Amino acid sequence: MSATFPPLARRLDGLQSSAIRDLLKLTSRADIIGLAGGLPDAELMPRDRIAAAADAALSDRSRLQYTESPGWGPLREVLAVRESGRLGRAVAVEEIFVTHGSQQALSLLSEVLLDPGALVIVEDPAYVGALQVFRAAGARIVAVPLDSEGMRLDALRTLLEAGERPAVVHTVSNFHNPGGVTLAPQRRRELANLAERYGFWIIEDDPYGELWFERPSPAPVATYSPNVIRLSSASKILAPTLRAGWMIAPAPVCRAVELLKQGADLCGSALTQQITAELLADTDWLAGHVDTVREVYGARAGALVGAMRARFGDRIVSTDPAGGMFVWVDFTDGTDTAALLPRALDAGVAYVPGNAFAVSTDYTRSMRLCFTTSDAATLTEAVDRLAKAHGGV
Amino acid sequence: MSATFPPLARRLDGLQSSAIRDLLKLTSRADIIGLAGGLPDAELMPRDRIAAAADAALSDRSRLQYTESPGWGPLREVLAVRESGRLGRAVAVEEIFVTHGSQQALSLLSEVLLDPGALVIVEDPAYVGALQVFRAAGARIVAVPLDSEGMRLDALRTLLEAGERPAVVHTVSNFHNPGGVTLAPQRRRELANLAERYGFWIIEDDPYGELWFERPSPAPVATYSPNVIRLSSASKILAPTLRAGWMIAPAPVCRAVELLKQGADLCGSALTQQITAELLADTDWLAGHVDTVREVYGARAGALVGAMRARFGDRIVSTDPAGGMFVWVDFTDGTDTAALLPRALDAGVAYVPGNAFAVSTDYTRSMRLCFTTSDAATLTEAVDRLAKAHGGV
Repeated sequence: MSATFPPLARRLDGLQSSAIRDLLKLTSRADIIGLAGGLPDAELMPRDRIAAAADAALSDRSRLQYTESPGWGPLREVLAVRESGRLGRAVAVEEIFVTHGSQQALSLLSEVLLDPGALVIVEDPAYVGALQVFRAAGARIVAVPLDSEGMRLDALRTLLEAGERPAVVHTVSNFHNPGGVTLAPQRRRELANLAERYGFWIIEDDPYGELWFERPSPAPVATYSPNVIRLSSASKILAPTLRAGWMIAPAPVCRAVELLKQGADLCGSALTQQITAELLADTDWLAGHVDTVREVYGARAGALVGAMRARFGDRIVSTDPAGGMFVWVDFTDGTDTAALLPRALDAGVAYVPGNAFAVSTDYTRSMRLCFTTSDAATLTEAVDRLAKAHGGV
Repeated sequence: MSATFPPLARRLDGLQSSAIRDLLKLTSRADIIGLAGGLPDAELMPRDRIAAAADAALSDRSRLQYTESPGWGPLREVLAVRESGRLGRAVAVEEIFVTHGSQQALSLLSEVLLDPGALVIVEDPAYVGALQVFRAAGARIVAVPLDSEGMRLDALRTLLEAGERPAVVHTVSNFHNPGGVTLAPQRRRELANLAERYGFWIIEDDPYGELWFERPSPAPVATYSPNVIRLSSASKILAPTLRAGWMIAPAPVCRAVELLKQGADLCGSALTQQITAELLADTDWLAGHVDTVREVYGARAGALVGAMRARFGDRIVSTDPAGGMFVWVDFTDGTDTAALLPRALDAGVAYVPGNAFAVSTDYTRSMRLCFTTSDAATLTEAVDRLAKAHGGV
């Protein structure tokens, strides 16, 4: 008798493979310009520094061994100093927890904070990695739309006043994926106030906050309330291969996450955590490195949006990227972006249709474009191909 | 209003921090000889090869990027070749899934295979990392005792004949942690037959199988049935810092695990996976390296057991380690090993009391000793200290 998968059918129901990941498998053809991915540019990653740091780390044999579940001590210390600067208060090491990318923080937090059926409020359009985790936890998901200033707090307030009691509100506060917008400073304060008034956790998911183009990101939501669990990552400023994310949370949350981390994978890699610690601790070098990434991404964002507006005129409304990796485009001419995609792939350009990120809003006429991995000339060519596929331009 | 942890109290109930991990925190004092840990010896890890492989890996910038959720393709190919040799059949790449250590495989499998309340049969004494995961999944856990030939299949058969229907039977087939014993070849075949007759999954957890001292481990349980999901790891033969475990399972199980891996942490590290692939693929070098580890561990095991028998005589019964990292000792003189521990720590030696691994059997008079990280003279000194603490010798 074959063994069966008792819960599998039910679980897979809420766990379809990410549409974006599946799409990426189809669009890795060399002749397609990829605006669909969400990858940082490997050409900008500090390979030589990482190689030198790896070599230095391996001079200590203890870096070959298992490490502590909450993260290698010196990395947590570096992060505590770093986050103390961000948050304008002394962050204790006990408030820092290192995860295998910030996706693992979302996953472990969903186990700690959510009972099946608990309400989670997300943004619409949403970060699909968060949706996947919250759905797997059996949460009830309600979405609040974004506007140009981020999460619409009037919509959130309406839900709360109608009696909805979320366990968690998830926000990508800076340079939203996929929405491209940033939560305005006044809204950050208001969101924090609502969290304290109604007793919910805010997960402030902030992998992109350092990638601002002209002015620094606003103070984190976490500066306004202890009800905020802040997530960040080395993936976008150093390299995804380090698999180094981190969480800043009250110590009891960190202790609960530690128990789950032991069961999930025991601990992270002492090697990649020491590399991360060394590079983050070299603050002068890091500032220069991140400046370079900002300049390059800023120029690419400008090139992409400029080309889109030049080509499509008032047929589109595009975000004005102030940082991060993504542009969100709404078509005003009725274009169905899912229907357009096969023609776009034929013309040699890939993007993600808006409905891949939809929770309860219809994003049939929207798309997400990623500008990080192509130079300006290639981005312009991509827009030419998109216009050709679109036909109506 | 503070945010609360709705499910936390309930979850922590089944998720106490591993007693061993907590103990290790207390016993890292330099004056204590540690027989309590379960770590491979960092002095034997191939540091220079790892450093050279890291350098080579980083010559390709794509190794800085995110990688595929089921593992970096070339590592899966190396593992498919390796496991084809182990299992005596052609293992397809689609049957190989790379995890963040084999602990992550246990964690993801428990989500795929277990509904809350599902029955999981484990060995008694049990690997605590597995217990933790199965408890977190809400499984009902029933234990089958070990004897000198591994899991007692007569006890398992009794449960099955009484109508128990496990979803999963978990076994550490080679050089059990903590029990030190190996599942006999005839029992492997019988266990596989029972899995097919009653329709359950076997998780064959095999991190130690290569660490045999005099003769190779028996053919894996997985050679006898497709109902077996086999887990292994680079942690004990290369280095834990690589965080490279792997699962050999039917392709539908791998696909289900892939969906969960995306939510759990997206993917592993392309850097450490390439290092692992390079070292595992160099089979001539690897054979010599693992031979060295075997010889050293075999000599240490012999020294520890020899000293225990010389010191304690018929007051103890010890396993005869044929491989792996652990010795299991039963006291025949009524010694309570938990009560002995504080005196042992005072005398400068640490071990783990048997009840830390107990499911439903009383192991008050047992202990687990790890022989991997001390040389023969230190192990002899450790036993002298233990005898002094014991007093009755």
